[in-house]
Amino acid sequence: MKLHFEDLTPGRVFLGGPIDVDSGEVNAFAARYDPQPFHLDATAGAQSVFGAQVASGWQTAALTMRMLTDSPLNQIANGLVGLQVDKLVWHRPVKPGDSLRAEFDIVGRKRSQSRPGFGVVNAAWRTYNQHGELVMSLENAMWVAVRGPAQPDEEPSI
Amino acid sequence: MKLHFEDLTPGRVFLGGPIDVDSGEVNAFAARYDPQPFHLDATAGAQSVFGAQVASGWQTAALTMRMLTDSPLNQIANGLVGLQVDKLVWHRPVKPGDSLRAEFDIVGRKRSQSRPGFGVVNAAWRTYNQHGELVMSLENAMWVAVRGPAQPDEEPSI
Repeated sequence: MKLHFEDLTPGRVFLGGPIDVDSGEVNAFAARYDPQPFHLDATAGAQSVFGAQVASGWQTAALTMRMLTDSPLNQIANGLVGLQVDKLVWHRPVKPGDSLRAEFDIVGRKRSQSRPGFGVVNAAWRTYNQHGELVMSLENAMWVAVRGPAQPDEEPSI
Repeated sequence: MKLHFEDLTPGRVFLGGPIDVDSGEVNAFAARYDPQPFHLDATAGAQSVFGAQVASGWQTAALTMRMLTDSPLNQIANGLVGLQVDKLVWHRPVKPGDSLRAEFDIVGRKRSQSRPGFGVVNAAWRTYNQHGELVMSLENAMWVAVRGPAQPDEEPSI
């Protein structure tokens, strides 16, 4: 069954991953989108502030998006349509060979008054490595279709 | 000459791009990182809330990172090391065939007291399409090496 605004109650948690951080993919992403020496190869990485080759932070974000699209949240009726991201923090470097997993917590929601068929749902994303260390977190607002009229116990609309 | 904290005075603007949004690259990025129908092909895009195939918002961010690494800001002495992103907003869809450019404005900075050789520099990123329409904006904090001791006219450290 497709997920609608009504299904995404604050407190629900969706799990994603694991996904492998492939060495060749780190190199290819860096070459196209973030060609800095510490992303491109191990030797330059070892001499950098990171002390090792590390993935672009934008690749960690993209891999986390893939974990989201593979999670049960991929059943959102209108697709995963992001509006805004806040507090995106790269807590620790991600390295070739790491394995990531993610948690997506529904933390808030409001129906739209300007576009009655939709609401905004807020989620907290947390990405962990294979040691259970937090590597990235962010807060995301998504546009989600509603199934029907507001219920009496729902949060006020915006 | 390498750029240090002292060179990144609030008010300085760095320009990036243009960069083309290649159709095959939109498909490949979507297939790996954001495999939703409206990112993957034109027919599904036409039937979606966007009315057309659109690039993943994370690809727009990644392409903007590439414009940053190709801009004069790539001369930062320790590389472009992002710490945090706030207020990342996707204002308009980006479509295959678009051409993007970007502006990076230095908006604030503070020396680190906990790590005396570095400071945090805040930049506002704005990404535009070929029509001059804003497609993405964000605020970014970067870690930047200092050249020497604080000057009397500098902002207070953190």
